[in-house]
Amino acid sequence: MAEDFIVTPWEVTGDIDYDLLAERFGTTAIDDKLLTRLSKYGEPHMMLRRGIFYSHRDLNIILDEYEKGNKFILYTGRGPSGHTHLGHIMPWIFNKWIQDTFGADMLFQFTDDEKFLFKQGATLADTRSMAYENALDMIALGFDTEKTKIILDTENIKTLYPIALKVAKKINLSTAKAVFGFDNTTNIGSIFFTSIQAAPAFLASEIAGRNIPCLIPCGIDQDPHFRACRDVAPGLGYMKPGQIYCKMFPGLSGADKMSSSDPMATIYTTDGPKEVKKKVGRAFTGGCVSVEEQRQKGGNPEVCAVFKYCYYLFEEDDRKLNEISSKCKNGEILCGECKIALTEKINTFLEIHQGKREKAKDVIGGMSFEGFKW
Amino acid sequence: MAEDFIVTPWEVTGDIDYDLLAERFGTTAIDDKLLTRLSKYGEPHMMLRRGIFYSHRDLNIILDEYEKGNKFILYTGRGPSGHTHLGHIMPWIFNKWIQDTFGADMLFQFTDDEKFLFKQGATLADTRSMAYENALDMIALGFDTEKTKIILDTENIKTLYPIALKVAKKINLSTAKAVFGFDNTTNIGSIFFTSIQAAPAFLASEIAGRNIPCLIPCGIDQDPHFRACRDVAPGLGYMKPGQIYCKMFPGLSGADKMSSSDPMATIYTTDGPKEVKKKVGRAFTGGCVSVEEQRQKGGNPEVCAVFKYCYYLFEEDDRKLNEISSKCKNGEILCGECKIALTEKINTFLEIHQGKREKAKDVIGGMSFEGFKW
Repeated sequence: MAEDFIVTPWEVTGDIDYDLLAERFGTTAIDDKLLTRLSKYGEPHMMLRRGIFYSHRDLNIILDEYEKGNKFILYTGRGPSGHTHLGHIMPWIFNKWIQDTFGADMLFQFTDDEKFLFKQGATLADTRSMAYENALDMIALGFDTEKTKIILDTENIKTLYPIALKVAKKINLSTAKAVFGFDNTTNIGSIFFTSIQAAPAFLASEIAGRNIPCLIPCGIDQDPHFRACRDVAPGLGYMKPGQIYCKMFPGLSGADKMSSSDPMATIYTTDGPKEVKKKVGRAFTGGCVSVEEQRQKGGNPEVCAVFKYCYYLFEEDDRKLNEISSKCKNGEILCGECKIALTEKINTFLEIHQGKREKAKDVIGGMSFEGFKW
Repeated sequence: MAEDFIVTPWEVTGDIDYDLLAERFGTTAIDDKLLTRLSKYGEPHMMLRRGIFYSHRDLNIILDEYEKGNKFILYTGRGPSGHTHLGHIMPWIFNKWIQDTFGADMLFQFTDDEKFLFKQGATLADTRSMAYENALDMIALGFDTEKTKIILDTENIKTLYPIALKVAKKINLSTAKAVFGFDNTTNIGSIFFTSIQAAPAFLASEIAGRNIPCLIPCGIDQDPHFRACRDVAPGLGYMKPGQIYCKMFPGLSGADKMSSSDPMATIYTTDGPKEVKKKVGRAFTGGCVSVEEQRQKGGNPEVCAVFKYCYYLFEEDDRKLNEISSKCKNGEILCGECKIALTEKINTFLEIHQGKREKAKDVIGGMSFEGFKW
């Protein structure tokens, strides 16, 4: 397995060895014991069963507190650098499951400041308008409109800033360079930014005047932020936030992470049926070069982007998923058939999603933290 | 002359060679030609005549714009780390003269975030409450309550932050380290902070949607901030702010800068007559060891803190100042007499100031930028 992959909040390259990554970051595997504990609250989500959400920090402590009646707040977010694609909504779907299962209040942070600072050529107007577009997708997934509040950094900065200052005072340049890999060419806003991403983890506690546990479900690429955030928490009198981390959603090209830098291998939530058909049609599969060979030798679902899409998002039924896998391996189905089936599943999902996304425009105003106006 | 002095926004040590400092920073001397130009608008303030405000950047350009009808906004500020002393109000008095002479609108920034970040042990509540105390002193000096707005960083951050982000995106770590001397032990908030100090320089232009010249009269120790600020201005479409810099107000101990780290050599605006008498009584002078020797050889006003206080603040009349100097040199007056005279002048000033300071409590609410509540 390759060891030369890179995973940071701003860069994911190479073939990711997720176990090695968790080891490097120092996060803990979600083992059978923890899964059994989680099943007390309801059938574990398929992303847990399948090891997509596979690693954590302090989830047991968060559950201990929950059982003592000290409910946690959920916190996740999005860096609004472009339109929402399937890779973004995957962890959001999991967040909604956590919200439903535990009845959790939620803060959803859009880091328009971060994307402005890190993306060359981006304006604050760009990242703000992308945050709006992304928020519609988040809302369309069915988050509880009463329990979910949207933070837009530049709008809610007055509340975030004092917390961010306390965090920033505890992180020195040496730590920031070690954790994030900053160098002399990094701009000073980017260096400060992690303090702003830490702030929502402590916000509920600040407002309540007592420690409220916080659980952060998100991609494991965000761990550097939360490692820094956790390190400073005790010194500020806050409880360390817990994390539950997922793997990256794969690209249709077979890459380990779906990325807007390859739009033809990326399905956006606003794509129409024809675009989806075209993109899935070009997807990398585990099939053989000829029909004859595939009938004889079978395909390889493990490397197949089409299969991965079923695995990560589009086939919730474990039995049916295994059936697809077996049939592929036995040469009973061909890549073309799988592509047609996936295209249908995605288009069915997107049609419904796009309808809900339109309706989200009516409720987004009421979900803004502190009532900011979009 | 010593070359091993250090002047940064956070540290002033050693015997400052102000001409060498201006050379190091790359600022321009206020020469006779510029003084003559300034006298068109009124008798130059004694701090100009005496070379206390002695160096500048782009003051000619600011005046050119003024003459074309493009009035400048004044911007200065205070890091609220402690109670106001005479060293703080000196440049404020000059700011008021500029305001009165040019009818300028003014932004006065209190950097409660900066002092929280840079001062170990300080809380945001501390620096905020100090900002209030310091603001009373500023108002007591008679700034136009209609034309002067008080910025408190943590209160006005929503307006400052988008400008600060634009500034921060243009300053890399390499530049920040070179300009401010940051190292691996510096916290990441301190590294970002200069962006917040830059923001008010561009605020009037942001609000107006066109370039409004900005003049910043302040201590030359602040030049690193404004050098960084000026460097990024053109790339952001802003006019470079101009600066007019003063020397540091001396301590009663004879040190080059009055500092709260030596409270007995520091006169606070809230000091009572007895404290002033005691502190001035202990002041370092240029006198001889005995009355006889002084009568014979005379004193040295150049090194005398008591004389410097007259020079910097308490004797506006150049003729009278020269008289004190000559009499001292000729042994016609003794240090005790000068101390009594200075004590009286300071106490007269403080009595009036403290009255105005009380009245400032009634108007401070109306002077907050965007109407924040203290």
